[in-house]
Amino acid sequence: MKLFRKLISLDEALKAVLAYAKPAETEEIGFGDALNRVLAEDVYSLADSPPFDRAAMDGYAIRAEDSFGASPNNPVLLRLIKSQSEKGKESRVGVEIGDGECFSIQTGMALPKGSNAVVMLEYTKERGSELKIFKPVTPGKNVSFKGEDVKKGVVVLREGKLLRAHDVGMLASLFKRSVKVYKRAKFGIMSTGDELLNPEEAEPYEGEKRIADVNSYVLAGLTEPIASSYRIGIVRDNYERIKTAISESLAVDSGCHCDGLLISGGSSVGKRDFIADAVEDSGDLVFHGVAIRPGEPTGFGIVNNKPVFILPGYPVATISAFELLVRPFLFAVHGVKEGRKKIFAIARKKIPSAVGRTDFVRVRLVCKENEYFVEPIRVSGSGILSSMTKSDGFVVIEENKEGVEEGEKVEVDVWG
Amino acid sequence: MKLFRKLISLDEALKAVLAYAKPAETEEIGFGDALNRVLAEDVYSLADSPPFDRAAMDGYAIRAEDSFGASPNNPVLLRLIKSQSEKGKESRVGVEIGDGECFSIQTGMALPKGSNAVVMLEYTKERGSELKIFKPVTPGKNVSFKGEDVKKGVVVLREGKLLRAHDVGMLASLFKRSVKVYKRAKFGIMSTGDELLNPEEAEPYEGEKRIADVNSYVLAGLTEPIASSYRIGIVRDNYERIKTAISESLAVDSGCHCDGLLISGGSSVGKRDFIADAVEDSGDLVFHGVAIRPGEPTGFGIVNNKPVFILPGYPVATISAFELLVRPFLFAVHGVKEGRKKIFAIARKKIPSAVGRTDFVRVRLVCKENEYFVEPIRVSGSGILSSMTKSDGFVVIEENKEGVEEGEKVEVDVWG
Repeated sequence: MKLFRKLISLDEALKAVLAYAKPAETEEIGFGDALNRVLAEDVYSLADSPPFDRAAMDGYAIRAEDSFGASPNNPVLLRLIKSQSEKGKESRVGVEIGDGECFSIQTGMALPKGSNAVVMLEYTKERGSELKIFKPVTPGKNVSFKGEDVKKGVVVLREGKLLRAHDVGMLASLFKRSVKVYKRAKFGIMSTGDELLNPEEAEPYEGEKRIADVNSYVLAGLTEPIASSYRIGIVRDNYERIKTAISESLAVDSGCHCDGLLISGGSSVGKRDFIADAVEDSGDLVFHGVAIRPGEPTGFGIVNNKPVFILPGYPVATISAFELLVRPFLFAVHGVKEGRKKIFAIARKKIPSAVGRTDFVRVRLVCKENEYFVEPIRVSGSGILSSMTKSDGFVVIEENKEGVEEGEKVEVDVWG
Repeated sequence: MKLFRKLISLDEALKAVLAYAKPAETEEIGFGDALNRVLAEDVYSLADSPPFDRAAMDGYAIRAEDSFGASPNNPVLLRLIKSQSEKGKESRVGVEIGDGECFSIQTGMALPKGSNAVVMLEYTKERGSELKIFKPVTPGKNVSFKGEDVKKGVVVLREGKLLRAHDVGMLASLFKRSVKVYKRAKFGIMSTGDELLNPEEAEPYEGEKRIADVNSYVLAGLTEPIASSYRIGIVRDNYERIKTAISESLAVDSGCHCDGLLISGGSSVGKRDFIADAVEDSGDLVFHGVAIRPGEPTGFGIVNNKPVFILPGYPVATISAFELLVRPFLFAVHGVKEGRKKIFAIARKKIPSAVGRTDFVRVRLVCKENEYFVEPIRVSGSGILSSMTKSDGFVVIEENKEGVEEGEKVEVDVWG
């Protein structure tokens, strides 16, 4: 019978796993495939954007000075020079307007030489070759200036940026056909336990005392937004089987080509704790046992130079350990600089916690008059999956804090 | 030359599009594929979970009363009855403990008859067939009771729930092999404009005055988390071509099988506004022109009984129109009941806005002492894509509000 070697603090555990977080390799991909990937290079603008002074509204390019004094009762009259439709697509090239002249223009078109503002269509009336203007504009009005969006040579997207739809749009606007991103590492996901049944194969639950493999689905779902997951499935609670499964999935010539493993189940102080033993005997067991709740029986090791997380068997404990240790590790590997934004909320009641232990508390958010309030979901035991499905997110109570007082402001990490 | 028929308010526009939001069809899929899908049924628990009283910790099942008075100096002595390893896997079946007896148990195992608490391994010492207990436990201690997580017959996940990793875990725990979800509608995405170049084919930007198709990538990226997108690509600014492209992509026997269209570009008051004309002549133009900024030239129509959004050519305006009108529509179609949680933040400076118009303001969030502050990104013109890439999210200023005062609290919709 074996107890934890030593219960280390979350800070120590985090420092230890991050020390092993080798940056993922990079790859060059088409910008059209870059959504939700992480940039592995700074992206520079190759030119000013817009590339020329252009109309920001539909209307007429004029010299602003010509419109001064215009009003609904006293419109200014300008001479309409060659319209776009007469000269075709290239009309803007070479067009130049002089005093008292104007030129029909659409949003996005280059401003003709000589003009310095656009008067909106709504404030004008065309009559033959003349245009009435009912409202004055100041110089620069309704014009997007060259380089106003992005100046040539500046960094527009930084390394480490998680690319969202508008970032991909920015790449398109720069004609940046391919972009360097971090490769998604592939994590093998294994559940251990004699009691576990595969819920995809077992007959629907009918009141029998059966336990489904929940963790491999939960861990795959949590991993997927950041890295690839490969569900290895259920391995029986047997030292040799677990050791073999670890070495097979991390072997260079393995079928799954895993860059690391998340193994859940059995990593407790019980007699059947074969995972930690198997990791220790296959490589290095860096730590086993972290002062977090739930999630105490969490461990970490290195096998074949690859990271192996030992996660608790109970789903909520596994999610706690994932959020507190695996997610920061995956972010570091994939170069993610910034996680999701947290929400500040006021505790509606005291949330107790012991000093010397980091607590992962599932909470519900209640919004009232532009303020969020937080309610812990009262449950005992980390088998309580409904504490997750009913929650909006979680609060982490640091180990040096003796709980959260009623009325105290806390940071809530909201489910993505 | 044609002006907007009528500029309607965002509320009116929203009401109009939602009136056409037919709920998507449903489909039955394996629960393992259900991540990020929306439930189309209530999911009930088929049994109590846990299905039996079970140990929440590794240790020994006992009668709590037997441990009363135990202390490090005065341990209680109990008789260890048949251990699991002797009887094999099924040992728990039929095991019953009496007064002064205890039984070795691991987290998750059923409590043997007669016991009512678990004393943690840490507070015990085994010696031969006897166990020393150094700390008393109360009845129910370290036990997860039958039905404590979920009671049989209650709704555990409601229709309309966007399924996250732990929700999929819940389905697994219920052995719910398949689940009814809303089918992802497929939206064709089309950019129109004579000036547009395909950034995947055009040579890298080298200072030329060229404009890339940005919108089809941005719109596909915004659509994908909710519905499927199909990039139709660039269609030239020509009434017949646009009309043909609309009817081809919405035809029953079309290759793309689109359930709707997002068409961007040219939907302005300019002369070249062929999209609205083509929609009107192919079906019903429900509205064209909404009092939002940016995004005024937004329209909506129905062709072949399918929704067609007319979106502005400028990327920022298209994103504004997407967030304010298309996203609520897609949520309604796919049964999403709750969008992402907003963040409250204090305006650091006045954000001006005109009454009678809804403003979509890109903002940056600054966090200081458990409080978010919001800074508008100062830009002119909706061509300014960098206002998006530099922003953390956006603030919507309602049409009856004359801007936001310095120090006022606003709701920020943070990019997902």
